[in-house]
Amino acid sequence: VICEVVAVGTELLLGQIVDTNSAWIGEQLALAGIDCLRQQKVGDNRSRIVAALREALDRSDAVLMCGGLGPTQDDITREAIAEVLGVGLDLDEDVAARIEAMFARRGRRMPMNNLRQAEVPVGAVAIHDPQPGTAPGLICPAPGDKVVYAVPGVPHEMREIVTRAVLPDLRRRAGVSAVILSRTLRTWGESESGLAELLAPRITELDRLGGVTIAFLASGIEGLKVRLTAKAADEATARAMLADEEERLRAQLGPLVFGVDDETMEFAVAALLEGHGLTLGLAESVTGGLLSSRLTDVAGVSGVFRGAVVSYQSEVKFDVLGVERGPVVTAETAEQMAVGARRVLDADVGLGITGVAGPAEQDGMPVGTVFVGLVIGDQEPESIRLALPGDRRRVRDFAAISALDLLRRRLLERSG
Amino acid sequence: VICEVVAVGTELLLGQIVDTNSAWIGEQLALAGIDCLRQQKVGDNRSRIVAALREALDRSDAVLMCGGLGPTQDDITREAIAEVLGVGLDLDEDVAARIEAMFARRGRRMPMNNLRQAEVPVGAVAIHDPQPGTAPGLICPAPGDKVVYAVPGVPHEMREIVTRAVLPDLRRRAGVSAVILSRTLRTWGESESGLAELLAPRITELDRLGGVTIAFLASGIEGLKVRLTAKAADEATARAMLADEEERLRAQLGPLVFGVDDETMEFAVAALLEGHGLTLGLAESVTGGLLSSRLTDVAGVSGVFRGAVVSYQSEVKFDVLGVERGPVVTAETAEQMAVGARRVLDADVGLGITGVAGPAEQDGMPVGTVFVGLVIGDQEPESIRLALPGDRRRVRDFAAISALDLLRRRLLERSG
Repeated sequence: VICEVVAVGTELLLGQIVDTNSAWIGEQLALAGIDCLRQQKVGDNRSRIVAALREALDRSDAVLMCGGLGPTQDDITREAIAEVLGVGLDLDEDVAARIEAMFARRGRRMPMNNLRQAEVPVGAVAIHDPQPGTAPGLICPAPGDKVVYAVPGVPHEMREIVTRAVLPDLRRRAGVSAVILSRTLRTWGESESGLAELLAPRITELDRLGGVTIAFLASGIEGLKVRLTAKAADEATARAMLADEEERLRAQLGPLVFGVDDETMEFAVAALLEGHGLTLGLAESVTGGLLSSRLTDVAGVSGVFRGAVVSYQSEVKFDVLGVERGPVVTAETAEQMAVGARRVLDADVGLGITGVAGPAEQDGMPVGTVFVGLVIGDQEPESIRLALPGDRRRVRDFAAISALDLLRRRLLERSG
Repeated sequence: VICEVVAVGTELLLGQIVDTNSAWIGEQLALAGIDCLRQQKVGDNRSRIVAALREALDRSDAVLMCGGLGPTQDDITREAIAEVLGVGLDLDEDVAARIEAMFARRGRRMPMNNLRQAEVPVGAVAIHDPQPGTAPGLICPAPGDKVVYAVPGVPHEMREIVTRAVLPDLRRRAGVSAVILSRTLRTWGESESGLAELLAPRITELDRLGGVTIAFLASGIEGLKVRLTAKAADEATARAMLADEEERLRAQLGPLVFGVDDETMEFAVAALLEGHGLTLGLAESVTGGLLSSRLTDVAGVSGVFRGAVVSYQSEVKFDVLGVERGPVVTAETAEQMAVGARRVLDADVGLGITGVAGPAEQDGMPVGTVFVGLVIGDQEPESIRLALPGDRRRVRDFAAISALDLLRRRLLERSG
């Protein structure tokens, strides 16, 4: 089965939005064993959407239209699909009721425009979004046993509908047998070229053996990713190949690996804290709340995370955290912040971060200088000094993940 | 002149790379007054590149091919262009010499493959990259006074060649004098469809008048954007048209508009605080440091932002912020958090946020329930209650921008 992607939106052509949706869809199609040979972007213009869809449908077995399902006048993907399929639009009462209910629940007036989202090409099936009130996806049968899918352009809605409804339908049509699975090991503490050197012998071996491939991807605060991809006749075999390779790489990389797939550094640290029965309090200066914000993205972290003091102005460091007055980009300040966070927030572990994110240097310290202080229980506080590359945002990102990594390694040591 | 973009590369279809080049090119074409109605992505496959180029050339006056000019076997854009134009490839001696010289200068042996980069379709002009040794861009005249451009896929090389050679050539062909400029008004407080309804009369009027167009773009924590685009004979006229339209829309939208172009809500609030000579202290629970992190992304905010207490566990609300013990997702808690933040952080203004981000309800309050408390100086604290849609992340994002918006509106009222 060949599936072509047509992304709809003038804002995509004008470069106001980068079309990340098509890239994600392309990746998912590849992993599902569906060929995607062409992707297009077209503006919110009915005749051009119709032309693009006709051409795509001529060349392919399936076309995935992304975007143009919203409530406004320039959302015309529904109308274009109906025109190409030569059918009318019907109001889907079920979808309409869901949209009305959503507005009622929020106590808001429903603009009439929103009912347009309940219109469906005759013969098509609406795929409900799990968050009712938004545009449903559409599965529209086309002549010659072909199919047109329509999904919203809002990334999280698109992903949900593609994963839950579009990919399974495509797989069924394709009778796909070969299974491609992948797994990502997340690492911190080694550069991309360092990792590549470490793993070069194994990569060479895999080139010869086939079956599993390894690729690297630097992802800032998400860590440096090592992606394993396995292709096999069935899922069980592919899973076993990934598990074997993961075990082999973990043996080689040791504590560099902090997580798998969606497991962030925050998740890893939260799990270790829970395992040790310890709570954490933060004192953030250069990271300004970023670390706390990332930690609280982890559902269920409230059991181990007490909270944070963001001491952006120096006075807050002195008055709230009890840091000694003086220059604040120092190892001593980081340690005193950690101790202060532990005391003020009544936590078992205190972590403090101070540094210079730029644009200008501070206290004679160059941009990128960061000190991380750590105190666990009544132990002596310790600190590390980092020299981080990049602009303001990257310095903050790297400071956050480096601070968590320090805590992670100390907790791993306690685990034995 | 209509110019279509064809991005070449299997890695784009597989989603291994997001095609940011096409977005950038689209924006540059728009600003240069060149219409771009369609963009395509196609893999490193000669027959499919040829088909995509043929179709694009049929529909358009110019086609910009991006990628596939490198030295490896799968870089076949040159060959595909030659095939479509019905010409051969000639070695461009000048380009070959530059590539050889580059290798010699770096003291490296030149792989023979690299000479492929010096091959040019007969009749085409090579555009030298200022960094010699890389693939040159190509300007290839096509029948019917049309043209095919080829540029490398490496972003900085692509940008250089497009800016220096492709855009001037396109402008000359178009005889463009028309200039297109755009400006984005950022709003908060009305839904996308609500805004569309508010502005519908004006949009209808503009459809008739021409010159300026209006589009909407929902951007989560970045607000709901209203983008104005003006097309005029010269830049001064386009600027004046944008200024007129902005004034008209601001008069209609009033305080819904919080910024222009890159001005975030955080920036707007920081500027207002500075204007009033006030400092801010935060108490964050449901947003977990997100708001603090966003505020400290604004360079220079340290003058008005004291810091934050992230009171993730209830005990921190009680013990550090002085909130009365009891259920913590209430209006009273939000107000007491604001008062506590102001006191603990020694700030003029206190802002407190408590609520339920999910996945489960809390204190009998459904997911999406958020209370924002605000206290300015010695005034009585106030609070608002929000019912926010979406998943955990979106609830936090909307809570953060809504809290800042409350403060923004109160500060605007003080400004008169």
